[in-house]
Amino acid sequence: MLTLDKIYQAAFVLKSVARKTDLIYAQKLSGDNEIYLKTENLQVTGSFKLRGAYYKISQLSEEQRAAGIIACSAGNHAQGVALASSRMGIKSVICMPDGAPISKVEATRALGAEVCLVPGAYDDAYAHACKLEQQTHATFIHPFDDEEVIAGQGTIGLEILEQLDNLDAVVVPIGGGGLISGVAYAIKQLRPDVKVYGVQAENAAGMLKSHLEGKPITLDRVATFADGIAVRHPGDLTFSLIEQYVDEIVTVTEDEIATAILSLIEKQKLIAEGAGAVSVAAAMFGKLPIHGKRVVCLVSGGNIDVNILSRVITRGLVKSGRNTTLQIALEDKPGQLEGVSRIISSCGGNVVSVHHERSDANMPIASCYLKIGMETRDFAQIEEIRQALIAAGFDLVS
Amino acid sequence: MLTLDKIYQAAFVLKSVARKTDLIYAQKLSGDNEIYLKTENLQVTGSFKLRGAYYKISQLSEEQRAAGIIACSAGNHAQGVALASSRMGIKSVICMPDGAPISKVEATRALGAEVCLVPGAYDDAYAHACKLEQQTHATFIHPFDDEEVIAGQGTIGLEILEQLDNLDAVVVPIGGGGLISGVAYAIKQLRPDVKVYGVQAENAAGMLKSHLEGKPITLDRVATFADGIAVRHPGDLTFSLIEQYVDEIVTVTEDEIATAILSLIEKQKLIAEGAGAVSVAAAMFGKLPIHGKRVVCLVSGGNIDVNILSRVITRGLVKSGRNTTLQIALEDKPGQLEGVSRIISSCGGNVVSVHHERSDANMPIASCYLKIGMETRDFAQIEEIRQALIAAGFDLVS
Repeated sequence: MLTLDKIYQAAFVLKSVARKTDLIYAQKLSGDNEIYLKTENLQVTGSFKLRGAYYKISQLSEEQRAAGIIACSAGNHAQGVALASSRMGIKSVICMPDGAPISKVEATRALGAEVCLVPGAYDDAYAHACKLEQQTHATFIHPFDDEEVIAGQGTIGLEILEQLDNLDAVVVPIGGGGLISGVAYAIKQLRPDVKVYGVQAENAAGMLKSHLEGKPITLDRVATFADGIAVRHPGDLTFSLIEQYVDEIVTVTEDEIATAILSLIEKQKLIAEGAGAVSVAAAMFGKLPIHGKRVVCLVSGGNIDVNILSRVITRGLVKSGRNTTLQIALEDKPGQLEGVSRIISSCGGNVVSVHHERSDANMPIASCYLKIGMETRDFAQIEEIRQALIAAGFDLVS
Repeated sequence: MLTLDKIYQAAFVLKSVARKTDLIYAQKLSGDNEIYLKTENLQVTGSFKLRGAYYKISQLSEEQRAAGIIACSAGNHAQGVALASSRMGIKSVICMPDGAPISKVEATRALGAEVCLVPGAYDDAYAHACKLEQQTHATFIHPFDDEEVIAGQGTIGLEILEQLDNLDAVVVPIGGGGLISGVAYAIKQLRPDVKVYGVQAENAAGMLKSHLEGKPITLDRVATFADGIAVRHPGDLTFSLIEQYVDEIVTVTEDEIATAILSLIEKQKLIAEGAGAVSVAAAMFGKLPIHGKRVVCLVSGGNIDVNILSRVITRGLVKSGRNTTLQIALEDKPGQLEGVSRIISSCGGNVVSVHHERSDANMPIASCYLKIGMETRDFAQIEEIRQALIAAGFDLVS
């Protein structure tokens, strides 16, 4: 059974390996409330997962340690288990689907684990891990549905209570539910008046659906770029802890998550992965009853693929008017490009790409398209450029 | 005169306003040494500048406070002065060149300052600030060449010594020299055996040149995207402190700075601005004698324009083989695009852009260019795709 004792013991065990991550007041994210960030993205391995994995493995018997560790994950759990095992001198094998990003494979290997790439998707890798477990008698470390893993994550709750007085609420991402189970348990034991809210991605809201149906359900599919919480089947143990200790579960959209990531970059200088940013997204987009409250948003991890990060930033720039593309139908005669360029530069726009296209079959024979991408200050400047082009007689298509 | 007493006093004064920023061990940036990051990018206002500005202003007389504050900056100093003044209930006017990014103007206003936009460049804004100073008798707060400003920045040195035992060296960015003057003074007074290294952008190395010539010089021009250290004329006071207390000054290139920013994002989940990343760049690219040493790199700020950040990330992706563009000369007949697409997808490349161009006057009449942009895992995968295309008879132009 989960007890506060176990969480305190986990905190003691973790002292030598996990960082007590900073709690940072986020003035620019606070509206009529006070938002603080618990920065587990700055944890060793880039996410909270190390805590649960390390505590779990530290509790194994000598015999179990000798037989080694197995886990299945293409993400943060893999790195947590790998580092924890190698710190304790235990052999670990991590099964991953063979399409896992090479960066995750390399990071896991670099932390001392053997990586077993299994053809197929996550479920195939999981099945292979179960088979290996039976063959080798190594211990399988579940990513969330395990009492000791949950106790390890719960140490974050203890730290939050120690780092901030008079808090009103804690907002925690939910995938399988291990993180929020531990945090909610710790907080409700010590400060039952503090609210604990869970946040899921709208397209991977298995725990919310389970709550509504009164039992753990399995989603047919999950579709979110927040891969850290893209879980089809929530845990049974975590389901029951969440039913008992969590006040409310809300969801956020993909665009809300992306905007939260960009806000964390611009305003707090922190990189969060999608799963890590859902707590901030929920606070930013008014999903929670936290007006006038002192609130901790748990930023659970920062391991975002840089290609995805690049897209998140680009989309955020477009959505905030700092990057735009105008399409202009030009008469096909000399001097047109120069005229457009002059207007844009006189309005302070900074051209970054130009496509001049004459071959669109839908256009009259004597005209062509100009697509011009530029960096801008804000929507007002974009409108100023548009109006100046229209005033000069140019035909804006979009 | 600068004294340790003043720096201790500054530390006391700053307790209520500045964060004691975390010192984070950067395992993935450490090679045969131990790299720690002093994260002043996580400071309130996103940079260390608040420290010096607040301490300086706190030392003004009642009469001086009543007359108000003037400063000239389009960057971090502006926000530091604005926040410090409004915290103490003092009126502040910040002169900025009128081309300053709207985000910086807004951020400075949001912190309670009046912003005075001056037509022209920094020197024009500075001249205007001097004129205002004479007219209004407000106190001009210099961004670096001021004893009390330097004492404020020196508090970072005290914190580093308190946060880490047995350190061997501290690496600090240099623009005008205020930050390193304070940090070096504090550290050398308390631990004269600890080395203090300064880092400048190669294209804005005014302090290094001053050191080599034995007196403060003025650069004709500076050209670096690290705008926080793009200073043409180093301070006189800072020059003399640096001559006395800094062990060595090195430089880094623009590409090295960009790579350091990307590494901080990927490996440490931190956003640094160009000026903030030069210390890490110097350590990463072997500019310093720090093999086997325990080293603190001071990450001085995180206020980077997101459009620039986006370019840094894109360039980093290309340079590390995770994004590439292939140009293929195709025979102009049906089925060619499909053939190329099939090969790329079978090798696991993820196509993100396609340009199919028939109008290049340099091409034979029956052929056309295909430019195809894709996300890739690494250089090995790019080479695999190239070889598969060549084996299938396609003509790779680049």
